[in-house]
This record gives sequence, C-alpha cells and structure tokens, in this order.
Amino acid sequence: MTDFNDLPAHVWPRNAVRQEDGVVTIAGVPLPEIAEEYGTPVFVVDEDDFRSRCQDMARAFGGPENVHYASKAFLTRTIARWVDEEGLSLDVASLNELKIAQAADFPAGRITAHGNNKGADFLRACVQAGVGHVVLDSEQELVLLDCIAAAEQRVQQVMIRVKPGIEAHTHEAIATSHEDQKFGFSLASGSAFRAAEAAVRAPNLELVGLHCHVGSQVFDATGFTMAADRVLALYSRIHRELGVQLPELDLGGGYGIAYTEDEEALDVDEVAHDLLTAVAKTAAELGIDAPTVLVEPGRAIAGPGTVTVYEVGTVKDVTVDEGVTRRYLSVDGGMSDNIRPALYDSRYDARVVSRFTEAPGIPSRLVGSHCESGDILVRDAQFPSDIETGDLMAMAATGAYAYAMSSRYNAFGRPPVIAVRAGKTKLMLRRETVEDILALEA
Amino acid sequence: MTDFNDLPAHVWPRNAVRQEDGVVTIAGVPLPEIAEEYGTPVFVVDEDDFRSRCQDMARAFGGPENVHYASKAFLTRTIARWVDEEGLSLDVASLNELKIAQAADFPAGRITAHGNNKGADFLRACVQAGVGHVVLDSEQELVLLDCIAAAEQRVQQVMIRVKPGIEAHTHEAIATSHEDQKFGFSLASGSAFRAAEAAVRAPNLELVGLHCHVGSQVFDATGFTMAADRVLALYSRIHRELGVQLPELDLGGGYGIAYTEDEEALDVDEVAHDLLTAVAKTAAELGIDAPTVLVEPGRAIAGPGTVTVYEVGTVKDVTVDEGVTRRYLSVDGGMSDNIRPALYDSRYDARVVSRFTEAPGIPSRLVGSHCESGDILVRDAQFPSDIETGDLMAMAATGAYAYAMSSRYNAFGRPPVIAVRAGKTKLMLRRETVEDILALEA
Repeated sequence: MTDFNDLPAHVWPRNAVRQEDGVVTIAGVPLPEIAEEYGTPVFVVDEDDFRSRCQDMARAFGGPENVHYASKAFLTRTIARWVDEEGLSLDVASLNELKIAQAADFPAGRITAHGNNKGADFLRACVQAGVGHVVLDSEQELVLLDCIAAAEQRVQQVMIRVKPGIEAHTHEAIATSHEDQKFGFSLASGSAFRAAEAAVRAPNLELVGLHCHVGSQVFDATGFTMAADRVLALYSRIHRELGVQLPELDLGGGYGIAYTEDEEALDVDEVAHDLLTAVAKTAAELGIDAPTVLVEPGRAIAGPGTVTVYEVGTVKDVTVDEGVTRRYLSVDGGMSDNIRPALYDSRYDARVVSRFTEAPGIPSRLVGSHCESGDILVRDAQFPSDIETGDLMAMAATGAYAYAMSSRYNAFGRPPVIAVRAGKTKLMLRRETVEDILALEA
Repeated sequence: MTDFNDLPAHVWPRNAVRQEDGVVTIAGVPLPEIAEEYGTPVFVVDEDDFRSRCQDMARAFGGPENVHYASKAFLTRTIARWVDEEGLSLDVASLNELKIAQAADFPAGRITAHGNNKGADFLRACVQAGVGHVVLDSEQELVLLDCIAAAEQRVQQVMIRVKPGIEAHTHEAIATSHEDQKFGFSLASGSAFRAAEAAVRAPNLELVGLHCHVGSQVFDATGFTMAADRVLALYSRIHRELGVQLPELDLGGGYGIAYTEDEEALDVDEVAHDLLTAVAKTAAELGIDAPTVLVEPGRAIAGPGTVTVYEVGTVKDVTVDEGVTRRYLSVDGGMSDNIRPALYDSRYDARVVSRFTEAPGIPSRLVGSHCESGDILVRDAQFPSDIETGDLMAMAATGAYAYAMSSRYNAFGRPPVIAVRAGKTKLMLRRETVEDILALEA
C-alpha cells in the first residue's frame, strides 16, 4: 500500500528528502523555494546524484573513460562539464551536440560521434576537432570519412556499428534475424565484415572496434552478453582474416531505470560483472585478446536525479463509465516538457512536494495544460484526495528524454533547469519566453 | 498505380507544380532554389493556399468571423496577420499564443481563449486585452474569471465547453457515455447546465454560447450534427429555465485533410451545408432561434499548403526477414521537425522534388537523422529505386502540428519556414542555430 508521503529511493533523486514539515528538499533545497524563485514548471537536477551515477558506472566498467555519456538523453554545457570532471567519455549524435561539447571545452579525444546520416559537415567537424571515435554506419559514410580525413591529413579512429540480431527490452532478450532498422551493418549477411575490411584498408581510418546497441530499458546482462558473443565472433574473424586485433568493444546503452515504485532499477555492478566476465570468457574461447568494453548510458546517469515540479491548477471530478469517478488534476506543463507518456506510454511517479498529504488515494489522472485531450502525464494513478489547486507536485526521474525532446507546443516556453547541490541552487538553463519564440520571426 | 512524378492535388499545396524539367515549384518558386538559399530541412508555405482555405471555410460557414483559426496547429506573427487579413477569428490556448497574436496586432475582439487550465495570468491577460470569448472549462475557472473581470471592471463574454458524449474520427461517429477526458462539463450529468446557470448569474460574465469538440480528422458532418443535436437540447433548456437565448454555438475543429494519395479531404462545402441545415432544423423543432455556428479549423487551413523539403543522405538496403530487402532513405531532419509519425503513426506523402524519377517503386522507408530507431517519417513506402544521396524530397501536408510540436532533440535546430507567393519567397521564421540553444545557458 503506497504511502504518498514516501519518496521511493530507487525512483527519486538520491538527495531527495521529505522534511518534518512535509516539504520535499533535494540536496537540502526545498522545492517550494525553487518554485517560488523560478516559477513552475521547473526541472530540478540533483548534481551529486548525476555525478554519483557517473562514478557508479565508471567503477563497474573499469574506468570512467569506458563510460560514454549519451548526450541525446540531456545535454547542456554544464552537463558536459560534469561529465568531463567525472572523467567519462561523451557520445554526440549531431553537429550541434558536438558544438555544445566544444562550448564546454570537453576534451575531443573522449568524444565519440554517432548517427545514421552524419553528413559531410558533421564528419569534417569531427575530424577537425579530433574526436576520439567516429562510429561508421554505412559504406557511403566510410568512404566519405576516409576522404575527409585525407583532406585534413589525419587518421581517424573509427568503430563499425553492427546489427547483432539481438533485441533486449526490460527482462527479455531475444535472438532474431530481424534487422529491419536504419542503424548499422548486418553481421549475418557479412556486410559488417566487409565494412571492417574496408575500414582496415582505408588509408586514413583506423578501425579500433565494433559497436552494437541491443535496446532500451534493459534490466539484466543477458541481451548484452548475447550480443557480445555474436560480435566477438566477428572480432575473431577479423583477427584471423585481416590480422587485426580490435582493442575495444562498444555495447551501447539501454541500462534501465525505475520510473515507478513497482519497477526496479538495473543493478549496474551486477550487470557489469556478468557482462565483463562473459566477454573475457568468450574472448578466451575464441583465442583473441578480450577487448575493453565501452558502454553508453544516458538515461541511467541523467534520468533518476531530476524531477519536474508543477503547480496544480484545475481539479475536476469526471464521471466515467458506470458511475465511476476519476479526478483530473491539471498542472501547468504537459506534453511540451515531457512527451514520453504520449509518445511511449511511459509511466511516472508523481507526488505532492509542498506538504504532507493525508487522504487516501482515489482514481486520478495527471494532465497537462495543452489544448489536446492526449496531453496526459500520468494516466492511471491513485492520488490522495486532498490534493488542491496550488499544491506543488513533482514528477520523478525526468532527467532523460524529457527536456531533450521538449517542444514549444501551444507556444509554451521551455521550463528552466535548476541544479541543486549542498543547499545551493544554480540556474543551468533559463526559462524560455515569448520573446525567444518571436526572435525567430523575420 | 502511383506515378511518383505526380503531385496529387488533394494532398499537395494548391500551387505546387512539377515543371517540364522535373523540378517542383510552389507558387512559381522552385523548391531546389529554396533549399539552396535556406538549406534543408526547410518548411515551405504556400501563402495563397493558406488564404484560399480561409476563404473556403468563410464562404461555407457564412462569414469569416465564424471561422476560428486554431493557433495550436501553427502560429507565427505572419500567420496571425494572414488570418486577420482574411477576416477570420483566432483561437488561442495559452498566454504565449495570445501574446503572439497581440504582437501581430490581431484584433482582440476576434480572439477566443481556450484551455483546461488557464490560470489567473492568462485569464487576466484575456480580460485586459478584451478578447471576444473565453471558453470556460471548469467551475473554478468560472469563479476566477468572474473575479478578474470584476477587478478589471469589465463584462467578459464567455462560452461553456460541454462534453456531448459524441466521438467522431474519420468517417465514424459514435454516441457514447464516455466522458473520461480533461475538457469540459458533462451534458449528461447536468453539470453543463449548472455551469451555464452560474455563468448567467455571474455579474461580470455574459454567456453567449456553448462549445464542444467531437474529434479530429473527421470527414463528414455526422459527428458534428449528432453533437449539435445534443447541445441544442441544452440551449432549449437554458432558454426555458434561465430565459436566455444563446446566440452562438461553437462546434470546434476536427475537419480532416488528406495526408496520402488514398485519402480524401473533407468536403468543406458539403459538411457545412449538412451541418448548418441540421442545426437550423433542430433549433426550429426545439422552438429556439438557431444560433450562429462557429467552427475552429486549424489543420484544414494550415495543413495542406505546406511541405517539408529534406535532402537525402544515406541510402541503405537492409535485408529484412526471409530475404526481402527494404531500402532505408535517410534525410536530414526527422522526429524533431515532425513527431506525428512517431506519436500518432501518421502517414505522409513524400516525393522527389528536384528532378523526375524514372525507376519503379521498391519497398522503402524514409527515416530521419536522430539517434533513435523509432525516428521514422514514412514507415512503408514504395519509392522509386533511383533515389540517390543529394536528391531533394518533400513531404506534403506538414503545415499543421509539425513545426508547432517540433523539438530540439539531438540539439537539432528548428528548420526555417519560408512563405512563397507569386514567384517570391519570404522568410517567415529563420533557422535555429546552436547559439539559440546555448542562449538559454546561464
């Protein structure tokens, strides 16, 4: 039975605490104070939570440089600096993500460039910046990058993205011949080997490893190890036929987090242990050196440490079929600041953070303020019946893919993002205003 | 059998033409010239198409002021000016949408304010601006608006949003007791009548009508007339019990457009005729004056006249199950500039616009450049097999809910929006740059 005053530790930021007066603080800063100063909605990022998850990953995977933070989850200059300070590497998937990293003086050698359609501008910028790795996604790109590197008189280290025919989601992993997606070269058809061969022969490319990605919101090592097994067989063939030992193996992202009380986060240490053990064992069986395993968590680092604070507006009881009532709680944000519930049917944990709630739960729905009936943040909840207009509610685990995918639907300005640490707040991103929107007008 | 060089007139802008050299022009402007000058991706808006659809709606519904353009579909200062010049009314659903309308000097008396959670700031701004109508969505809001109007010494004209228990989508309309949504007051439970009574008695509100909305992508009048019948019964009761004849009836939006060749757009004249005839008949039967019918098209005005022009990048043949091949064509935009395929499984018509294509169609998928396998623009297409890197492809009917819901996912800047008319281009919105993104950093 849910106690609405709890803050489940596996879902909420590590430094989230409900005080004796019922107010929730993060890193010692009361959320109502942040709402008062910066308005609502507002994203609040627990800096130590973010950094501690970088450290957890670094420890589990044998060193911070083996952990590539995936920018797409959430990137700002400040975030890039935190990632740098923690010694992690950084994945970028567009020219602008690279530029933001550069604006933060992120060491280019620890940057890896991704994407199915990078384009000459992006590739040239990568080579000129001296990014550590470019992950090649097509034959065209391989040829183009080799030309660009030649023109820049560089040798660019590259990886090849392969499709291992494994799909992992939550606790299930399946081996499949299904390769119907835009990313990568097929292992099964031999095109991955041919790409590796071409990369090895390309005068201005240096192949250092293969890359694969098995899914998202994965909770155990099975899918990763199944993929590693398949990809390592190609390492063995490359060794045998091309005489090259590839030093690195990038197993991508997908490390799951708990969005709701009934979910459990992936155990990073356990998965890392299982995965590294399996890779070492398979490599030994194949008679090759075990490559260094690289991983690319985004959500697992950025997700859990951030909450979105909303103010409750309209409270409305709606009679649904057969005399059942549902309470609609409207808040002052919605699908513009978090499209995931609408896009992926994602579930979230939301709680009142400005005071204790005392009443029992009733069937409720948390909705946004957009002019669209699908603008739903939490579809089926049992919220306390004493929630009122003016209460502050926070939605947990909104650090990844919420701000990053945010829109200006209904001309809503993006909320500000506030970092908190040791009792202090720091503005990371200011609120967008109508002036920002009008600034694009000719 | 599709001819890929056709531009189906019911899907493409009214002034789209494929020239003898194979290049597609809109309003006489070759799309490759726009791509050359402004880069890709780029939205191109056929101004005369937009205006002509305003005029079609105005003619069908008995006057431009009865037609409320729904800002949420796509709003800029320029669009607000076009809507104003055509004499239409304007719906806004947020404070910022109101501010954009004001920045375009849109006459406040022709503005209607919507939303399930308007908030005191928005309501006060509406009253101060002198907006024509506020559509009330909850009891709380009714009380709040009455207070605000009193403080501002105004009487605010209002409508009441009701849930008629009708759902219409495409060609089906159903009567339902299902009222499980955030908007409006229930007709069935009597709460709509009580709200009307409260509005009539509120000293600073003047009730002028009821509002309802039955769905989206509706293609015939059935759902609208079913809803009108139910709502008019309440007009009759309000007349009988409160002694008030309400002069207006707002039947909302939902007018369907054709996104693909096999779809047919709603016939505006036919639907308007059926709807107005039905309202007149029902009003006569009920012994009340027939109210003026207001409608709120957004998509039907803004949608069909705009295309998004992309450049083809990576071309990749992927072996899918059992030896079948699918060609993946990557373009330089994606789910950031059009979330609808991912969010709603929306289908679109895309064609090469820089030249004729000659080859037969093969199973193809049009994908974006985002670091996400779900970043798909056209899932199942038969595109000509001679499409190559560097070709320009345009996706039609992207004027509504594409730019409006666009994000900066992967730090992509929003594309520019270019208006074309009589052989001339005009920059409506410039491209977003990484500087725009970084401008929010503290």
